[in-house]
Amino acid sequence: MDFQKILEQIQEDTQKYFGIGEVANYIPELAKVNPNQFAMTVATVDGDIYSVGASQQRFSIQSISKVIVFAMALEQIGERLFQRVGKEPSGSSFNSLIQLEQEQGIPRNPFINAGALVSTDEIIKNNKDAYEAILNFVREVSLSADIDYDFKVSSSELETADRNRALAFFMKSFGNIQGDVMMLVDVYCHHCSLSMTTEELSKLFLFLANKGVNPLNGQRVVSEYQAKRVNAMMLTCGLYDNVGSFAYEVGMPAKSGVGGGITGVIPGHLSVSVWSPELNASGNSLVGTKALELFSELTDLTIF
Amino acid sequence: MDFQKILEQIQEDTQKYFGIGEVANYIPELAKVNPNQFAMTVATVDGDIYSVGASQQRFSIQSISKVIVFAMALEQIGERLFQRVGKEPSGSSFNSLIQLEQEQGIPRNPFINAGALVSTDEIIKNNKDAYEAILNFVREVSLSADIDYDFKVSSSELETADRNRALAFFMKSFGNIQGDVMMLVDVYCHHCSLSMTTEELSKLFLFLANKGVNPLNGQRVVSEYQAKRVNAMMLTCGLYDNVGSFAYEVGMPAKSGVGGGITGVIPGHLSVSVWSPELNASGNSLVGTKALELFSELTDLTIF
Amino acid sequence: MDFQKILEQIQEDTQKYFGIGEVANYIPELAKVNPNQFAMTVATVDGDIYSVGASQQRFSIQSISKVIVFAMALEQIGERLFQRVGKEPSGSSFNSLIQLEQEQGIPRNPFINAGALVSTDEIIKNNKDAYEAILNFVREVSLSADIDYDFKVSSSELETADRNRALAFFMKSFGNIQGDVMMLVDVYCHHCSLSMTTEELSKLFLFLANKGVNPLNGQRVVSEYQAKRVNAMMLTCGLYDNVGSFAYEVGMPAKSGVGGGITGVIPGHLSVSVWSPELNASGNSLVGTKALELFSELTDLTIF
Amino acid sequence: MDFQKILEQIQEDTQKYFGIGEVANYIPELAKVNPNQFAMTVATVDGDIYSVGASQQRFSIQSISKVIVFAMALEQIGERLFQRVGKEPSGSSFNSLIQLEQEQGIPRNPFINAGALVSTDEIIKNNKDAYEAILNFVREVSLSADIDYDFKVSSSELETADRNRALAFFMKSFGNIQGDVMMLVDVYCHHCSLSMTTEELSKLFLFLANKGVNPLNGQRVVSEYQAKRVNAMMLTCGLYDNVGSFAYEVGMPAKSGVGGGITGVIPGHLSVSVWSPELNASGNSLVGTKALELFSELTDLTIF
Repeated sequence: MDFQKILEQIQEDTQKYFGIGEVANYIPELAKVNPNQFAMTVATVDGDIYSVGASQQRFSIQSISKVIVFAMALEQIGERLFQRVGKEPSGSSFNSLIQLEQEQGIPRNPFINAGALVSTDEIIKNNKDAYEAILNFVREVSLSADIDYDFKVSSSELETADRNRALAFFMKSFGNIQGDVMMLVDVYCHHCSLSMTTEELSKLFLFLANKGVNPLNGQRVVSEYQAKRVNAMMLTCGLYDNVGSFAYEVGMPAKSGVGGGITGVIPGHLSVSVWSPELNASGNSLVGTKALELFSELTDLTIF
Repeated sequence: MDFQKILEQIQEDTQKYFGIGEVANYIPELAKVNPNQFAMTVATVDGDIYSVGASQQRFSIQSISKVIVFAMALEQIGERLFQRVGKEPSGSSFNSLIQLEQEQGIPRNPFINAGALVSTDEIIKNNKDAYEAILNFVREVSLSADIDYDFKVSSSELETADRNRALAFFMKSFGNIQGDVMMLVDVYCHHCSLSMTTEELSKLFLFLANKGVNPLNGQRVVSEYQAKRVNAMMLTCGLYDNVGSFAYEVGMPAKSGVGGGITGVIPGHLSVSVWSPELNASGNSLVGTKALELFSELTDLTIF
Repeated sequence: MDFQKILEQIQEDTQKYFGIGEVANYIPELAKVNPNQFAMTVATVDGDIYSVGASQQRFSIQSISKVIVFAMALEQIGERLFQRVGKEPSGSSFNSLIQLEQEQGIPRNPFINAGALVSTDEIIKNNKDAYEAILNFVREVSLSADIDYDFKVSSSELETADRNRALAFFMKSFGNIQGDVMMLVDVYCHHCSLSMTTEELSKLFLFLANKGVNPLNGQRVVSEYQAKRVNAMMLTCGLYDNVGSFAYEVGMPAKSGVGGGITGVIPGHLSVSVWSPELNASGNSLVGTKALELFSELTDLTIF
Repeated sequence: MDFQKILEQIQEDTQKYFGIGEVANYIPELAKVNPNQFAMTVATVDGDIYSVGASQQRFSIQSISKVIVFAMALEQIGERLFQRVGKEPSGSSFNSLIQLEQEQGIPRNPFINAGALVSTDEIIKNNKDAYEAILNFVREVSLSADIDYDFKVSSSELETADRNRALAFFMKSFGNIQGDVMMLVDVYCHHCSLSMTTEELSKLFLFLANKGVNPLNGQRVVSEYQAKRVNAMMLTCGLYDNVGSFAYEVGMPAKSGVGGGITGVIPGHLSVSVWSPELNASGNSLVGTKALELFSELTDLTIF
């Protein structure tokens, strides 16, 4: 399949969707981003990389980092993680406290904020320096040694993190947060601020398309079983309130972030990342979603 | 792959799970079923059929009929159906009125009761005789001319259908039910009472594994696009409150019913049906779920 | 106290509030009412009657009838009624199904729709002809033999009663409705359609200001204990979502209806009724609420 | 009326209710209290004091302090307070985050935890030293110069205050908390820990029975208007999930605390306080509630 040509067509066909969505504005630093940007990268399990647009431009991966901390925590403590976090779609807004109250402080899944706070709490507990551990993981799997936190973004997020502090204290009141809440939210805001390119993200997610092994260096990241499970979790819980629509229209496991990035996986074939900052009403990149729908249509690569 | 042998192993290995779950008891007629039963059938897109257990024994398909009426309504009116019903997992119990109230009478998806009532309402509107239309569809696609409603079961369900009447009147108060509520609930209880074998169910679902065409007779049932979409809907919404766990442990689009049946699809490969009446806490066949987990493990056939 | 003068001042001072609220529009027949109307009547336990405005003009009492059926049911079966309906304010919209679902089909209190359906169900069960029994009660206590249902209004309500049917079927699914739902909703829509003047309403409610005895004819309507309890229920649950504000600003037990009527009670002293069709956002008469606030201010008669 | 005799009879008649309820156990320090204790004090607007039982024994007033900080904040900033907190009963558990989420961080009323945090936030903002200001208020109005915080209790509460921190951070995320959350929760836990006798509490609340003026020293505490309003708020919101039942069975404005105290007011007549540590399922003193029901029955003093 000529991925380069397909990506070029997608870039062309999605031009008309610019100007409809809105850049995330709840984090001041993110609101400054130039909305009119686009990048898309396919990485195949054979190691080929295809890109269009600003694929060397780093952006804030935001909630895509929830997959990273989930995979790390899963690899480190295994299925025990699910004593503290569920596996079911939430059916309501990504930061809702309602379900958390009804379900005794156990977040529905690892991809809502509360669930990612639990993964992060585990990483803090199981690693000497959580900041460093997360950074090392991302750098090694992406083969990109200079990926870093964006401290302007993390500072900006910390200033508007009261709802995440509320979530963390609330879970702590149920006994489901073990560490210090203030530090937990600090680590959380840092991994959300990770700054990466679509190329780096596609490389990072390749192990999920390849049964847990990074095909670029042959290193196992998680077990085959775990890789499948992360994919299942992305499909049922990865797209905020658009999980069903995205499965319906695109049909691949994926995770989005309010920085405008979306990264998806076709098991056995490839990972694909797209970035464009304008968001739809559910907080997913509007142009990015359209691009992945087109990708699904043009390649006929869906899991269904 | 030697499906026959795999099915036999599954039958053997799941013996230990009998006696843990409970037969559905909210419908008197279903409560009478002998719990200690098991059947499993694989149907491949090449037309091969493999079975173990009581695969010629008919049982009440219950909510599996939601896929039937959804596919029929989708084929008959297309994407307009989604003006009346959503595509997102519900995140709460399958017959909850709460979301219906918060979302102005639009059910979350076609596989909760409220959503299936909408599909049924469309079928009543678009067919001379809804009872006949549904029966004909099932008989033709299954290639089994004597499939029928179980009138004892439908009568039993009608006696305990007050919550479904509440759902229907509630949606009608929002303008989202067009026909007569009493007739609607009657048709609904009838299609839930359809009595089929695992072999018939596997044949019935083969078109979803084969891009919309029934490979057994070459007839197109729905478009390729629609077949993929029904699969996506099953994966994100087909298993009540176990959607995420099932995707995580089994990894295939599927739909369950409180009669103890579950039917799943591996696109491009096969459909697989299992039946065992004892249910887990979420209303899915307990032994059936274990059987499909084993199937996933032994065949390595998952969509992830 | 010169009630006549006070009522005249209230009539004058509330002129400025016309044109702000809106006449109820969810029932077609009610939407036809001329909004620019006002009546107010005080009836004292000594038997004196003071009125201003259109106090001889009948209007649809709507939810004020919930007090009537509650008092009747309480008188007929006593405290057993509270096995089927609670005593607590609902904290959410008057016809919400959410609490009903969370609380197993037991309505929060007798003054939300679900609760009034329960009272009505009891009256149907315990009287030969519920329509007649309710009419007789109202006529006798009001000393007004020609009060009647407004059949145009009841027909209009029956056409838009799907949500009440949903509520009734929902409670029936929990075993908390015993009679036929369709007849129940019919009786319910009839007592809501009762057409009365502010003078008749004030006379009707006098027994609640006089320890259960109608001072106009000396007949006991309910026990002293029950009269106090009905008042307590009105104070905590009588004003939809304005219970707290009304207690705060007016400070008397009262019940409102979307027909624009409000009737209140100062125990030991008087009952007071006001009518003006324009409603505030919570469904209570806007001018009527202002009139009662003024009444409270000018007379210094509050229970606090 | 011979209040002394009535109190003695109540003390005798409530003996049989001991051993049914349970002492609050979520705060370790409170769990240590001897459950088998009882005290009751009536203070009339004429300045007479009647007591039975351990009326000189101080106990933790807990949520009764919510009335204190509400009255203080109301007196200090007036009706502006209601831009930040509502006036309506909550209809759900006293520390629920659900309504807070649905209602954009505005607590339903000043007597749920979130609402009391808002009052406390105002006091911190408007007084040099909030700890001192609250203590001075209580000492002066009670005429008891040695009332103090119980630092063992406040420390114990601070250790289990994560849910209150969650509430405060959650409101802060909506802009409805202005000060530092950690200090806010500290002040909050301190005023909950105030240690007082039933006699002191009855004296403290007398101004609410006397149009805002403390009859014991002639000093105005709040305006007449405000006194009535505090009473209305207690009646509709003062008893957690028993607001309606308490109005129904007792019929007076009152506020309870999980320390086992309840203080009520009969406007124009008296205030009455009762203490007994065993709680019913809703967190109100079980024996205390029975005692107030008897008081209402024996004196016929209710507001209805």
